[in-house]
Amino acid sequence: MKFQGKNYRTVWEENQKLFIINQNLLPYEFKIIELNDLTSAAHAIEVMQVRGAPAIGATAAFAYALAVIQMPQNENTIYETLLATRPTAVDLQNALQSMRRVFIENPRNVLQAARDFADRTAEECRQIGLYGNEIIKEGCHILTHCNAGALATVDYGTALAPIRAAHDDGKNIFVYADETRPRLQGARLTAFELAEEEIPHAVIADNAAGHFMYRKEIDLVITGADRITRNGDIANKIGTYAKAVVARENGIPFYIAAPWSTFDRSLKSGADIPIEERSEDEVLQLAGVKITSGKSPAKNPAFDVTPAKYITGFITPKGIFKPEEMDKIWEMLT
Amino acid sequence: MKFQGKNYRTVWEENQKLFIINQNLLPYEFKIIELNDLTSAAHAIEVMQVRGAPAIGATAAFAYALAVIQMPQNENTIYETLLATRPTAVDLQNALQSMRRVFIENPRNVLQAARDFADRTAEECRQIGLYGNEIIKEGCHILTHCNAGALATVDYGTALAPIRAAHDDGKNIFVYADETRPRLQGARLTAFELAEEEIPHAVIADNAAGHFMYRKEIDLVITGADRITRNGDIANKIGTYAKAVVARENGIPFYIAAPWSTFDRSLKSGADIPIEERSEDEVLQLAGVKITSGKSPAKNPAFDVTPAKYITGFITPKGIFKPEEMDKIWEMLT
Repeated sequence: MKFQGKNYRTVWEENQKLFIINQNLLPYEFKIIELNDLTSAAHAIEVMQVRGAPAIGATAAFAYALAVIQMPQNENTIYETLLATRPTAVDLQNALQSMRRVFIENPRNVLQAARDFADRTAEECRQIGLYGNEIIKEGCHILTHCNAGALATVDYGTALAPIRAAHDDGKNIFVYADETRPRLQGARLTAFELAEEEIPHAVIADNAAGHFMYRKEIDLVITGADRITRNGDIANKIGTYAKAVVARENGIPFYIAAPWSTFDRSLKSGADIPIEERSEDEVLQLAGVKITSGKSPAKNPAFDVTPAKYITGFITPKGIFKPEEMDKIWEMLT
Repeated sequence: MKFQGKNYRTVWEENQKLFIINQNLLPYEFKIIELNDLTSAAHAIEVMQVRGAPAIGATAAFAYALAVIQMPQNENTIYETLLATRPTAVDLQNALQSMRRVFIENPRNVLQAARDFADRTAEECRQIGLYGNEIIKEGCHILTHCNAGALATVDYGTALAPIRAAHDDGKNIFVYADETRPRLQGARLTAFELAEEEIPHAVIADNAAGHFMYRKEIDLVITGADRITRNGDIANKIGTYAKAVVARENGIPFYIAAPWSTFDRSLKSGADIPIEERSEDEVLQLAGVKITSGKSPAKNPAFDVTPAKYITGFITPKGIFKPEEMDKIWEMLT
């Protein structure tokens, strides 16, 4: 991703040191921090200094590798500590399982395996961009929810990869970025990425997406996902489900863009996905400002499930698949 | 409405002085302000110190009366100044038209007419509460959007009137209050009213309403409206449309509660309703805190249109009517 014209990854390793862009400070401050032990890496995932399913996966892979190099005897604790940080995104679990397989085979290969995991995620996102570009027509107005950009992955993004590719391709496009309460990843992160790439866009309240769909001012919806189950149901940032229902009601195609690490064959359907409930303060405060009298509680589910029937297609590193074609995906992944 | 156990109206006149509760300071500060001339009254409506379709109507009726008593020769300017403050809610226009009729007939009656308008609005809301109570079952979980409470009316509220009545009736109910970005009327005002009345509730991000509907944790949706057209389409706070679509998708009844001043026979359908576009700063900032990098624009439609087909019924001062029964309503209003 670009910042002031320079290219960055969201998470990377250099001389056995792990670095991330601290996403909690964006868009006010662009700050790179080092995660110098297992505790700080687990904390960074928990408090969402790094967030986005594929970015969490890559961070966990590096953190696992660096920790097991230091303390191979603690492998189990390292694995469990990282796995417990966030429940909904399956990328975390997929990354850790694949790292553990390497560790069991040959502990010396773990760092290279983590580098490969991050590189593969970035390359898959680049491929998602190329395939996704094909469904974006000249003049297209695209809605996206939350941040499924470079910041959420390692580079390029999932939902933002086709948008970047279409823009690079010279297409005139316009992006509606849902602000995405409660944590405002759309306003803080997606708008930041789009502005840095000079892609025309506007931030909207989450409430306004339906209005623009009803008025046919949105032609296409693309979001990322935190988990995709066997039947094609997905979990993604809270609010995705309602956008999908309203998109279908208005005949607007609704696509999910995701790398392979987001697919989870082990779960039959969306009903099996654990939904993370986060602190009510995320709702009761906005950008640090209290928004209620203090006498009201809040409920704060961080994700919701969108059933496969609302999804037009999955934009993957190997092309676009309909929910009815899930078997093709699972075949490819075995 | 109650504040610290004492009853208040949202807007009232005393010795030819006009008072409102300044809603922009809630829930941080409960402050009554005097609107001592036409300019301050028009300003109060524009900047939403007083908001909510029926409360705007009552404020305009009082402001009109007090101004034409002082300067009857300026009646036309007074009328036009107040009419221009907000475009979407028809209550404003209805209130001013009925005040003008009184003025033309006998200017001495204007103050009493404004008092009658405010009293009638309050009484209509009380009646809405009694009829609406009939559809609220013991144990009911109700979603509401924006603030259609006492603060939005003169007393009791529209959507909150049935909720107040059910609570007073001893029913155990639970209210989900959408926070309602960008101006947070749900978090700031609805939650405030519910807390003062000790009605069990939780504030949720607007994004979470769909999730709770999908999970069948919401049994009923009630909102207010800013305008109801001849065919039963309505305009209400941005986000209402998406909630209505998702409610229907999940078989959840969706009701609109409104006094007579919200009904507008002059417009054929929702397509004719003017939609107010407010400042992009409402989206880009909260309490002076910027939520983007400053390089992103925003779009900020304040209302959306919900077509009649998504509406289960209208809770009115004379009972509940289905959208197919709009003719009965128009007959009653002639």
